[in-house]
Amino acid sequence: MIVTARLDFSAAHRLNNPAKDAEWNRRVYGKCDNPSGHGHNYVLEVSVEGPIDPETGMVIDLKRLKDIMRDRVVNRVDHTNLNVDVEFLRGVIPTAENLARAFWEQMAPAIVEGRLRRVVLHETERNSAVYEGE
Amino acid sequence: MIVTARLDFSAAHRLNNPAKDAEWNRRVYGKCDNPSGHGHNYVLEVSVEGPIDPETGMVIDLKRLKDIMRDRVVNRVDHTNLNVDVEFLRGVIPTAENLARAFWEQMAPAIVEGRLRRVVLHETERNSAVYEGE
Amino acid sequence: MIVTARLDFSAAHRLNNPAKDAEWNRRVYGKCDNPSGHGHNYVLEVSVEGPIDPETGMVIDLKRLKDIMRDRVVNRVDHTNLNVDVEFLRGVIPTAENLARAFWEQMAPAIVEGRLRRVVLHETERNSAVYEGE
Amino acid sequence: MIVTARLDFSAAHRLNNPAKDAEWNRRVYGKCDNPSGHGHNYVLEVSVEGPIDPETGMVIDLKRLKDIMRDRVVNRVDHTNLNVDVEFLRGVIPTAENLARAFWEQMAPAIVEGRLRRVVLHETERNSAVYEGE
Amino acid sequence: MIVTARLDFSAAHRLNNPAKDAEWNRRVYGKCDNPSGHGHNYVLEVSVEGPIDPETGMVIDLKRLKDIMRDRVVNRVDHTNLNVDVEFLRGVIPTAENLARAFWEQMAPAIVEGRLRRVVLHETERNSAVYEGE
Amino acid sequence: MIVTARLDFSAAHRLNNPAKDAEWNRRVYGKCDNPSGHGHNYVLEVSVEGPIDPETGMVIDLKRLKDIMRDRVVNRVDHTNLNVDVEFLRGVIPTAENLARAFWEQMAPAIVEGRLRRVVLHETERNSAVYEGE
Repeated sequence: MIVTARLDFSAAHRLNNPAKDAEWNRRVYGKCDNPSGHGHNYVLEVSVEGPIDPETGMVIDLKRLKDIMRDRVVNRVDHTNLNVDVEFLRGVIPTAENLARAFWEQMAPAIVEGRLRRVVLHETERNSAVYEGE
Repeated sequence: MIVTARLDFSAAHRLNNPAKDAEWNRRVYGKCDNPSGHGHNYVLEVSVEGPIDPETGMVIDLKRLKDIMRDRVVNRVDHTNLNVDVEFLRGVIPTAENLARAFWEQMAPAIVEGRLRRVVLHETERNSAVYEGE
Repeated sequence: MIVTARLDFSAAHRLNNPAKDAEWNRRVYGKCDNPSGHGHNYVLEVSVEGPIDPETGMVIDLKRLKDIMRDRVVNRVDHTNLNVDVEFLRGVIPTAENLARAFWEQMAPAIVEGRLRRVVLHETERNSAVYEGE
Repeated sequence: MIVTARLDFSAAHRLNNPAKDAEWNRRVYGKCDNPSGHGHNYVLEVSVEGPIDPETGMVIDLKRLKDIMRDRVVNRVDHTNLNVDVEFLRGVIPTAENLARAFWEQMAPAIVEGRLRRVVLHETERNSAVYEGE
Repeated sequence: MIVTARLDFSAAHRLNNPAKDAEWNRRVYGKCDNPSGHGHNYVLEVSVEGPIDPETGMVIDLKRLKDIMRDRVVNRVDHTNLNVDVEFLRGVIPTAENLARAFWEQMAPAIVEGRLRRVVLHETERNSAVYEGE
Repeated sequence: MIVTARLDFSAAHRLNNPAKDAEWNRRVYGKCDNPSGHGHNYVLEVSVEGPIDPETGMVIDLKRLKDIMRDRVVNRVDHTNLNVDVEFLRGVIPTAENLARAFWEQMAPAIVEGRLRRVVLHETERNSAVYEGE
């Protein structure tokens, strides 16, 4: 049994690899490399897998799962610039792929009822990344 | 190949384990334990897996799948109180997890073209449960 | 200039006019008259009209508008049974029309920047009511 | 008869009135005043009103309306920082209200079939502004 | 008070004015003039305005409004080719504008509780037409 | 790590097996067998799986994935009749299942960063097919 919770947040980012020169970055990232950034309304979906607790009828209380999502991720990234403001993203190029993996690592240790099964990060309605761990 | 059909229904429910006392229920379920209930527009997604029939180009006729969904589940739960009105939910705490599993059990025997692969129940746009059988 | 904020809540209700007999109610409301109720994920949209304040660039701070929506309406109706639990709905048949008007009356006095222009209440993705005052 | 076209774009912004001090900005804009910005997937809806041309059956060709939206607005703001990168937004605090009005002014002169009736700018699924001209 | 009901249907169409030559049609309608047609999942929204009946709490029973929508429009256009199969669209170029007006004319005489206020036809998520009568 | 891109297109189709007689087709496909066709706004989701390239932070550039989707599929099917106009669908009954598989075969050879993991085709908001290869 899998349960999924969904929250959203708004953030700015710029795709840029500082180890590469300007020409490489412009070629690889195009307009996503705009120096002053752009932004998105991200949607974060987190799925936890486990047996149904027969006393509660739940895998994990979704209110508690959302508290974990907020404490570990959403409150740290909402209304920020992902390249600048977020401690746990230092040195991470904020692509949807890298964000999904970093968010997984932030949340996995806090989930003790069931196990973290999947993190989906929607950057727009047309682009998303799914991470299911190693 | 997997095909998915989606239908919705509206129902009331209350999360409450009658084997536990009021304090336990309030602590576990919070406002979801409101004695007179609350409700949702549920969205039910049912996926069937199988080979494509070369004559029809279909795994299962989605009109027939929806007829099964309506006969076995939707017509029995739509515009009801899930704690009170539904025979096959007697004794079931109507969490999304328990509902997804109960709906699976209602529908699985009726699906003879392909096999039932997944039942997703969305309680809100932010909460859902996925059941894929034992 | 008009600004709109949108929040949602989950509630149970039953359509029933207690001044009428059971046959009338069944004929008028059909399955919406189910005695133990049913429920919805309601979406509430509130629009405020006014000039843009040149210092803030805003008609009304949408965070403040949402606080009003929560204090006056959402926190009082979320996870309730609208026929039973809500003081300001005593004696009101909880159709979308009556709810939209009652919510307007709850919020209008609290909106002092700009003026309340429109309240939209979506009961489902297919049914909604719009109230714009007398 | 009114026709509406809808396009989206992604941009960063910061709400800040440079004529005011830091304390005022923090109090008025809260986390929206984050110095390194945040961002959104904006949705722009533009409505044009006029008679149906009996030869074409159209008020205005929606492909042409979208070309105007792209030339005058979307291509200039997509993947930018609205505080920094956009000529026609110099000196404008990029609230949804101010953006809706600025976008109206950009597009109105270019619409010669029918007349511009309404510009709606959705900042998130929960916040939007509507401008209908003076 | 306004209430709105929403239904959808799927249909094929081709934009072509038979009184004009091929070159004119190709220039005006572009790929929408494809001779073998294309198609859409249309969404039809119908709004009725009137006072709330104090006995029922409703402007018009939305089930009855949907019955009118189905009888007069949806059942006649669903799974059809709008250029070929629909009696009441003979001689109508099936643009969203012309369809919205034709649907209004089909439904207006049947609505006797309240009055028809608005017909919205969404051709895609990005294109729609609104008709509010003469 | 999986990334997903989503695009849409509009097309007409008719479900009909020309090797069968009219009575068989009417019984199997119902109104989907309407001789002059009907149509949909299809949504195509394509998922690619692979490791994150540490230099770019991406599995595959989603702009490049969308270019492949457009070149191989969307530009060939958008605003067409799927029974008539599309070379690579000759002899294919255009059910969602057959389309998903045909689209997979069109795109798989072009995807060289990562590997094609899943093709989802939504025919309506209520019907979809998922193909994950042999």
